[in-house]
Amino acid sequence: MEITAREIAQKLNGEIAGDPEVRISAPARIEYGKPGNICFFANPKYEHYVYTSKASAILVNRSFVPARPVAATMIKVDDAYQAVAVLLEYFQSLKKSRRRGGLLSRLFPRYSKGRGTHVGKGTWIGDFVTIGRNCTIGRNCTIHPNVSIADNVTIGDDTVLYAGVRIYSDCKVGSRCILHSNCVIGSDGFGFAPQDDGSYRKIPQMGNAVIEDDVEIGAGTCVDRATMGSTIVHNGVKLDNLCQIAHNVEVGAHTVMAAESGAAGSAKIGEYCMFGGNSMVVGHISVADHTTLAADSVITKTIRKSGQTLMGYPAMDADKYKKAYVRFRQAAEEKE
Amino acid sequence: MEITAREIAQKLNGEIAGDPEVRISAPARIEYGKPGNICFFANPKYEHYVYTSKASAILVNRSFVPARPVAATMIKVDDAYQAVAVLLEYFQSLKKSRRRGGLLSRLFPRYSKGRGTHVGKGTWIGDFVTIGRNCTIGRNCTIHPNVSIADNVTIGDDTVLYAGVRIYSDCKVGSRCILHSNCVIGSDGFGFAPQDDGSYRKIPQMGNAVIEDDVEIGAGTCVDRATMGSTIVHNGVKLDNLCQIAHNVEVGAHTVMAAESGAAGSAKIGEYCMFGGNSMVVGHISVADHTTLAADSVITKTIRKSGQTLMGYPAMDADKYKKAYVRFRQAAEEKE
Amino acid sequence: MEITAREIAQKLNGEIAGDPEVRISAPARIEYGKPGNICFFANPKYEHYVYTSKASAILVNRSFVPARPVAATMIKVDDAYQAVAVLLEYFQSLKKSRRRGGLLSRLFPRYSKGRGTHVGKGTWIGDFVTIGRNCTIGRNCTIHPNVSIADNVTIGDDTVLYAGVRIYSDCKVGSRCILHSNCVIGSDGFGFAPQDDGSYRKIPQMGNAVIEDDVEIGAGTCVDRATMGSTIVHNGVKLDNLCQIAHNVEVGAHTVMAAESGAAGSAKIGEYCMFGGNSMVVGHISVADHTTLAADSVITKTIRKSGQTLMGYPAMDADKYKKAYVRFRQAAEEKE
Repeated sequence: MEITAREIAQKLNGEIAGDPEVRISAPARIEYGKPGNICFFANPKYEHYVYTSKASAILVNRSFVPARPVAATMIKVDDAYQAVAVLLEYFQSLKKSRRRGGLLSRLFPRYSKGRGTHVGKGTWIGDFVTIGRNCTIGRNCTIHPNVSIADNVTIGDDTVLYAGVRIYSDCKVGSRCILHSNCVIGSDGFGFAPQDDGSYRKIPQMGNAVIEDDVEIGAGTCVDRATMGSTIVHNGVKLDNLCQIAHNVEVGAHTVMAAESGAAGSAKIGEYCMFGGNSMVVGHISVADHTTLAADSVITKTIRKSGQTLMGYPAMDADKYKKAYVRFRQAAEEKE
Repeated sequence: MEITAREIAQKLNGEIAGDPEVRISAPARIEYGKPGNICFFANPKYEHYVYTSKASAILVNRSFVPARPVAATMIKVDDAYQAVAVLLEYFQSLKKSRRRGGLLSRLFPRYSKGRGTHVGKGTWIGDFVTIGRNCTIGRNCTIHPNVSIADNVTIGDDTVLYAGVRIYSDCKVGSRCILHSNCVIGSDGFGFAPQDDGSYRKIPQMGNAVIEDDVEIGAGTCVDRATMGSTIVHNGVKLDNLCQIAHNVEVGAHTVMAAESGAAGSAKIGEYCMFGGNSMVVGHISVADHTTLAADSVITKTIRKSGQTLMGYPAMDADKYKKAYVRFRQAAEEKE
Repeated sequence: MEITAREIAQKLNGEIAGDPEVRISAPARIEYGKPGNICFFANPKYEHYVYTSKASAILVNRSFVPARPVAATMIKVDDAYQAVAVLLEYFQSLKKSRRRGGLLSRLFPRYSKGRGTHVGKGTWIGDFVTIGRNCTIGRNCTIHPNVSIADNVTIGDDTVLYAGVRIYSDCKVGSRCILHSNCVIGSDGFGFAPQDDGSYRKIPQMGNAVIEDDVEIGAGTCVDRATMGSTIVHNGVKLDNLCQIAHNVEVGAHTVMAAESGAAGSAKIGEYCMFGGNSMVVGHISVADHTTLAADSVITKTIRKSGQTLMGYPAMDADKYKKAYVRFRQAAEEKE
């Protein structure tokens, strides 16, 4: 299955520099491009590959002015990074779609489904999946093998649950979500009442967890249910692997959190935030929209001003942190 | 199902201020309280809700003196936080209990169980659970679907294993424990002998992991087995999600560890400690009872004095850390 | 099953000091050694146990000169730590090997296997395992229950997958690997193209993840698939529990990463590195061979010089970090 550079340029509203009839069969990383490949160039660190690549075509930003001759056909677009998503979607659509099971597996399904549960048309359910009672699963979902869905769970349309996802009772997952393997939705919040003898008594966690639409949740990530009410992950949020969302947290729409980051109980994170890997927000505070938190940093107080970039523990303005860290580092050179 | 404020006060040894006959049907968070709800007030940050809440009743500490009139009936108790646990348990008990399976599933169970394994009365086992050989599972346990229990495992009474829990061979779990989805008990410790060529040779991990009674373990948390002997999580310990307990660690009774915290190999953590999120203890050291470790901090040396609050990396007295951090931050303002 | 100290010394090319005929039945930790046990002494912190242990034999380094009389038979070897691995392997081999399933389970297997999939001789597959289409599983593998393997996966010989391992489509796992429970191989990389309205569009992750030979991967650890090409974990790498390997990362041969550590997208980690717990490397940089990174530290820039020990955030020379931290700590004592 091949496509010409000209056809790709048409798809992406791009402009051609070079041979428009060169034939492309697959995408590749710019370091590894071979004849027949189309590669992508957006990060300036990789510019030297543009001049040495053996790829047939390279997708670049319209603003890119090559410093040296480029052998490959260049396809110039407004935003190469956005265009990559579109182009990869095209190539992925060429791959065969998932099987929907043979006659035998439809007659003798190897999954289990409780009473009162309804599964929408076009939804595929893998082997050894368990779905509890009174659940509603939407249309065209893909539920990979070995998933567990407890009672009274609602899932929207076109959602994908990879193998080993766990959803506790009473939780809701929206439409067009992607939940990766072994993520856990709705486990008990970490709430205990200290007793007079120093031991702890569990506080029942009676609420649920709500994952809205277009959310992607990484492998192994945990979203706890609320003590009362709901832990909410709003529309379009992207959580990477091994993140922790504690009880009663709200994550605002279109916020992205990198791997191993977390939010402690009742934290309220704004919209369009970006959290680096291994960062966290302590409990019972709120974080303004458009906040960027550097990797391995901790927000310890409510952030009211939106649009800040924070770093350190406690998190402070990132530029100040870096400046202060230079001083910290210099101290090692001073005499004592 | 309704109950009056007076009846609740009786359950909790509380005192009424306001209408004792107001009818309560459900608990709610104080921000969202509606008529028919009972809410809880303990954290001073939420005091303003006490005066504006539409809830029918509010549980408060006996010491609370309202600054303004309160429309809701107040139920005053010695410790509102402890009382919440009792009250939520009451409301949870009103919800229907888990199904125990129909006749069909009892005749043709969809789980597997090895030879020599004994399961106590009243224990419910979900679909696609695997239990190895020579295991002993106590009474009235709930083993949710898709759990794996290997050979020679012992589990006490009234323990709950949520979907996807993994227990390796030879491990022990006590009574009244709650293990959340996808936690792993008894995986191999991380032990390798460096070889002369720089590669590593696995050191067989021949011990086991022992979880004592009344322990709660969060989703995705891992407790490794010992090289020899046992990794031990003592009575009443509460581990949050995604924690790491390495081989040969001991976690003292009634210690609580927040999400993503960890203890490296052979660390010995005392009783009644509290660890913040993402904190850790390095290997081969011990930590005194009643130690509090702030989030994202690292204990690097044995702590002998009990009752300290520590912060930073390496962890030091928390107040000192905060003071030093103020200086660190000021350095960014100084001229160079 | 017993063996004499003399026989053990022969196996290990060791020298005896004490009674060579003392009989050993099991290994034990030096703190808990009893008659019939052999214990190991390598860490100087534990020297006092050498003099008080009730064990029948103690394995020590040839260079060890006891300060006091030792009751146990000492077996002196070049490297006690290496010898432990050999000796524990011996004791483990005495334990009965895993069952290979009865006739019934061979006739009516309770796992599922897609068309075109080939499983090598001697491979055991537990209940409720799912293997997709067109997979190749090598010989003498052990696939514990409740594992999910998607389509087009290749696995070498003698590899062990513990319960709940998830392998996404198109991934490769080598020979003699050990993958612990609930680890996830090949989940989507965290790649999204920001749209003009601030939301994100998923970038399809079309590559795969490749785990080479002799790799051990801890419980709950995630290795994402590449956007294009492969995420690669090279020969002999050891990853502890709950680690995160992002898309397009390469982990060099014989590198070890402790629990909760991680590498962000496209990071390239050298060979023979050692990463402490909870440490991380940011994306798109490379780290020289033989780099040691302290716990809870973050490498933020390419490290070209091999053999360094780094600490802090951003990571700097570890000795300098410690010195600077002393100054930081002193600041808390100064008057303001």
